[in-house]
Amino acid sequence: SLTAGEKNVGVDVEQLDSIDIENQTFIERNFTDAEIAYCKQSPHPQSSFTGTWSAKEAVFKSLRTKSQGGGAALKEIEIVRENNIPSVKLSGDAAAKAAEASITGFKVSISHDDVQAVAVAIAEF
Amino acid sequence: SLTAGEKNVGVDVEQLDSIDIENQTFIERNFTDAEIAYCKQSPHPQSSFTGTWSAKEAVFKSLRTKSQGGGAALKEIEIVRENNIPSVKLSGDAAAKAAEASITGFKVSISHDDVQAVAVAIAEF
Amino acid sequence: SLTAGEKNVGVDVEQLDSIDIENQTFIERNFTDAEIAYCKQSPHPQSSFTGTWSAKEAVFKSLRTKSQGGGAALKEIEIVRENNIPSVKLSGDAAAKAAEASITGFKVSISHDDVQAVAVAIAEF
Repeated sequence: SLTAGEKNVGVDVEQLDSIDIENQTFIERNFTDAEIAYCKQSPHPQSSFTGTWSAKEAVFKSLRTKSQGGGAALKEIEIVRENNIPSVKLSGDAAAKAAEASITGFKVSISHDDVQAVAVAIAEF
Repeated sequence: SLTAGEKNVGVDVEQLDSIDIENQTFIERNFTDAEIAYCKQSPHPQSSFTGTWSAKEAVFKSLRTKSQGGGAALKEIEIVRENNIPSVKLSGDAAAKAAEASITGFKVSISHDDVQAVAVAIAEF
Repeated sequence: SLTAGEKNVGVDVEQLDSIDIENQTFIERNFTDAEIAYCKQSPHPQSSFTGTWSAKEAVFKSLRTKSQGGGAALKEIEIVRENNIPSVKLSGDAAAKAAEASITGFKVSISHDDVQAVAVAIAEF
């Protein structure tokens, strides 16, 4: 088990077209209302949605728990923006798992170019 | 020199086709038997081998030592999977260098999409 | 605010051709003399310039400050190489912001393949 000061790391890379932002059901199952609003008003919604997805996946990996299948839990990993700087807010089972693992916080960073998005997350203990 | 709580970071990106998984000599020089077994039984052996290679390179970079040439040392950086979650096991010179640098452990994460694999490693002091 | 032992993370990805290394004005505005000398004498100047740019951006993101526009501040984030291992040296406003945020140091790692460069930075508190 992890001790104070340890970090877990998660990385995720996605081709920009890997997220179908026209699929409303998919979007609403995986993104919160605030995330959808942020991504839709961005200059490049496709990049924003894929970058946000990538950040969720990176945070999920930094939790080091087994996937529950279906990806539904990604909605419980919310990427919040303040001044375009992303931070992480957990709810539901994701929050419970982080508490169980004694995770005290997350840091996440996102980048994209013309073809892909990549994100790195650190879980802190 | 590094003090307790510090971390080194390593990142590596590889196009999926950068590893020739048909080259048995290359594979056996760089991957352990357990890694080869894991990658061969995975749904996408090419992605698994390249992702594992990328993880080894990221860990190597987090060691912050000069390359020894030939890449042979990569076999000493083993990527172990438990429930598909990767962890790091060193042997030989790699283990000696980590001990010399007072590294207490590593965390690694791997991702791939249709064209590439990327990995991030953190070395902890 | 951050407490001792916390880390910020930054990631950046760039297509190799995203940096126009023939544009002397652009290069001199964003890279230090030492960076330019290092990148020009490398086996692949285009990869070196783009990787260095990516490292600067990753460090900038790990600072978690708002962009000042124009990108001029990137010259204040210098990527220094010793034995090909990159480290970070700040000057000017970038150094002031790091001090203000109580950042005690940075770690950075860079990777590139035939099409892109990626970098990850960690800011330590």
